[in-house]
Amino acid sequence: MVTDPQLYRVLWENERVRVLEYRDVPGDATHLHSHPDSVMVTLSSFQRVISAGGREAQVDLEAGQVRWLDAQEHQGRNVGETATHSVFIELKEPRPGTPRQDAALGPSAS
Amino acid sequence: MVTDPQLYRVLWENERVRVLEYRDVPGDATHLHSHPDSVMVTLSSFQRVISAGGREAQVDLEAGQVRWLDAQEHQGRNVGETATHSVFIELKEPRPGTPRQDAALGPSAS
Repeated sequence: MVTDPQLYRVLWENERVRVLEYRDVPGDATHLHSHPDSVMVTLSSFQRVISAGGREAQVDLEAGQVRWLDAQEHQGRNVGETATHSVFIELKEPRPGTPRQDAALGPSAS
Repeated sequence: MVTDPQLYRVLWENERVRVLEYRDVPGDATHLHSHPDSVMVTLSSFQRVISAGGREAQVDLEAGQVRWLDAQEHQGRNVGETATHSVFIELKEPRPGTPRQDAALGPSAS
């Protein structure tokens, strides 16, 4: 919301979660930004490259998929031929215990 | 998962969330069951009646909507002409502070 307000929109929030909608078109890229621990649900298929600190991850998803996103900083680029439409459910409470040591870059299966 | 394992499926879970997929067809109904605080994302349009303790709520949603579900017990019935397809992101951590006093029956806007 801070770095790319034209791509992200807050759908609603309450005490426990904030829900963001993300939409872009091929070629669009985000600035470096941070996510808290989140769940992403894809509402379109898309192909993206996620990058941070010299690492890159290719993300190729169909619509209707649900993925976990470890708290992280990254930037993303739509490298496909379709618009991206997805929602993020951000968890507002701090992660109990210690931070995840094996945080994955980009979305992961759980 | 306990009362209606033919309608719900666990997609994945980790320390913080459990993700369920729900699918049914017109006329299907669930038994009385409980949800923890959850976020629901609709992947189809559907028309349902949610009921609990003599109260009823009509739920009529399009695909791609995101709704909050207060922790609650209820049962649901597909009263429309289309299959239901949705996902639930269940929050595993207990709600901080006191339980919500104005818990809504069925999904709410936030």
